[in-house]
Amino acid sequence: MEGDDECVVENREWYLAAYSTEGVPTSDHLKLRTVRISLASHSIPDGHVAVETLFLSVDPYIRTMLTGTLDGLYIEQFQLNHVITAFAVGRVITSKHGNNNNFVVGDFVLIPSAPVAEYSIVPATKILRKIDAATGISLPEYLGSLGVPGFAAWVAIEVLADPKPGSNVFISAASGAVGIIAGQLAKLRGCRVIGSTGSDHKVELIKEELGYDDGFNYNKESDFDAALTKYFPDGIDVYLDNVGGKMLEAVLNHVNKYARIPLCGMISQYNKVWTEREGVRNLLNMIGKEVRMEGFMLASHWHRFGDFAKDMEGHIKQGKLKSKNKINLGIESFLDSLISLFTSSNVGKVIVQVKA
Amino acid sequence: MEGDDECVVENREWYLAAYSTEGVPTSDHLKLRTVRISLASHSIPDGHVAVETLFLSVDPYIRTMLTGTLDGLYIEQFQLNHVITAFAVGRVITSKHGNNNNFVVGDFVLIPSAPVAEYSIVPATKILRKIDAATGISLPEYLGSLGVPGFAAWVAIEVLADPKPGSNVFISAASGAVGIIAGQLAKLRGCRVIGSTGSDHKVELIKEELGYDDGFNYNKESDFDAALTKYFPDGIDVYLDNVGGKMLEAVLNHVNKYARIPLCGMISQYNKVWTEREGVRNLLNMIGKEVRMEGFMLASHWHRFGDFAKDMEGHIKQGKLKSKNKINLGIESFLDSLISLFTSSNVGKVIVQVKA
Repeated sequence: MEGDDECVVENREWYLAAYSTEGVPTSDHLKLRTVRISLASHSIPDGHVAVETLFLSVDPYIRTMLTGTLDGLYIEQFQLNHVITAFAVGRVITSKHGNNNNFVVGDFVLIPSAPVAEYSIVPATKILRKIDAATGISLPEYLGSLGVPGFAAWVAIEVLADPKPGSNVFISAASGAVGIIAGQLAKLRGCRVIGSTGSDHKVELIKEELGYDDGFNYNKESDFDAALTKYFPDGIDVYLDNVGGKMLEAVLNHVNKYARIPLCGMISQYNKVWTEREGVRNLLNMIGKEVRMEGFMLASHWHRFGDFAKDMEGHIKQGKLKSKNKINLGIESFLDSLISLFTSSNVGKVIVQVKA
Repeated sequence: MEGDDECVVENREWYLAAYSTEGVPTSDHLKLRTVRISLASHSIPDGHVAVETLFLSVDPYIRTMLTGTLDGLYIEQFQLNHVITAFAVGRVITSKHGNNNNFVVGDFVLIPSAPVAEYSIVPATKILRKIDAATGISLPEYLGSLGVPGFAAWVAIEVLADPKPGSNVFISAASGAVGIIAGQLAKLRGCRVIGSTGSDHKVELIKEELGYDDGFNYNKESDFDAALTKYFPDGIDVYLDNVGGKMLEAVLNHVNKYARIPLCGMISQYNKVWTEREGVRNLLNMIGKEVRMEGFMLASHWHRFGDFAKDMEGHIKQGKLKSKNKINLGIESFLDSLISLFTSSNVGKVIVQVKA
């Protein structure tokens, strides 16, 4: 890219037009706009690279960064009128990065907080890792089992829950992006794994394709307590909570001694203001059963990302881990992709493919 | 005690006459009866000792063992018509214990689950430790700062919370048996320590006598959130929860990153059936702030009791730790002593002195 004119691109990007405090975000809150940016070498600061975005990871945490209110939920909020960010796979198209570990033109890279845009200029320090194309693993996989949901599942199961063979593991949102990986990781550890999910079809899927021992459709269970009594006659040792609210409360009536509850997300609660969220009345149970409940964010675990990637690439190459990716085409599909996370319509990981 | 007749004693003991599912327990639930038992050597099985009870520890957990329902709260429940148990200091009056670590007549001993009775025959394996009279520490102290509440405070602060110098520590039920010790341990670690308690008098006490940096009377605060904003402008790093419910919910709106919340007890919730307990609606905050909330029971930490005792005896001998004991006389005072834990009338540790 030598000539300056050629290097100016029409760059479509999603920005936060208005805070979304309650309910599912809409096109009132997130809007697509076109900006012109130069990708010419002289427009790029030293230590930076220009990247074309190939795939964007669509994750529930993004919704929690749209409220504009710090009700203690997550640290950061997107800024009004600024482009929002997501975990992404990109390709370096111009590089002004000159240390020993150079990113060069053509490199495929993972960027945890990439602008949700077709192109971007980012400091090399914000790149998490280079993707080794020789592994034969497909690029979207780096946003699924090797990306945010895979890492979340790995931290929850391998680091925080650390279940023993034979432990009884319960996973809510079991057919979601985190759930499908977490269930398989727990199975690889020899656990008995039960999942809850939002349709009979998904229950079939986690049992038939993803190796869960059993599962149930929470929409058909009027009494979660009774369901857990049925599926966990020996109690629950690990609960990977992806939903919060009433399911978490029900679980606390079935926990075994020293149960671990990694809090990965609470998708049932994200679209509500906090005073309307469902109260959990039986935290007292945590004392007698000596339960540890622990929230976590991936940012605090980046130092383990290398261990995670090595583990997971091993599982994938040995055919021990299946993935489910739902790929939507074009950056314009980002908002609908985000909304789809809250409608129970998806199975597995939702990804936006930016370049056809 | 050679002659058999002399060895038969009239032994008063408290037993569970009826379960108490809700409200403060009364004389309908706990009753005193007199039984005749023989303390003669031939009446005592090998490996056992006969003990006269000197002091009984009156702790809130006892109330939770009277409900007869395992709603997940605590593992064990007292049996109907059986004598209840408590942590006690006793003196060995007959010994049939013959291993290398003999308990002999005259030994002062600590028994975690001693019958709430004037005399008892217990296996030596149920004795936690011998008390070294040469330390000069008074016997009731072994039920306070060196007993259940001291150990609970030590596990919560030293093992689970592990605060750094300068950490902001909040302790509810701050003038209670656990709170007075926990606050002092946190101060010894260089923390800023604030307590909540139930009267202006107790607020004065924790500030003036026990070294708390500040405190407030929760009965005078209509808005816990506002109170915490005022007392914790820099947020809360450690919350030692002794009450649960609304205070815990308020705290979760003020937690700092990586806050630790040891759940020591939830005295505000003990007298309620679980569906009527106060729901905590903002557990979601635990994710963004990566909070660890952890229930604990002392039984899982007995292996640390030696470390604890050494630590605390050191603090006591150096005059670094003050205690507050409320001693009620006579085994007949046990029920009223237990009830007093729920009426906000006490400061510090409630102990029944069985022998005058």
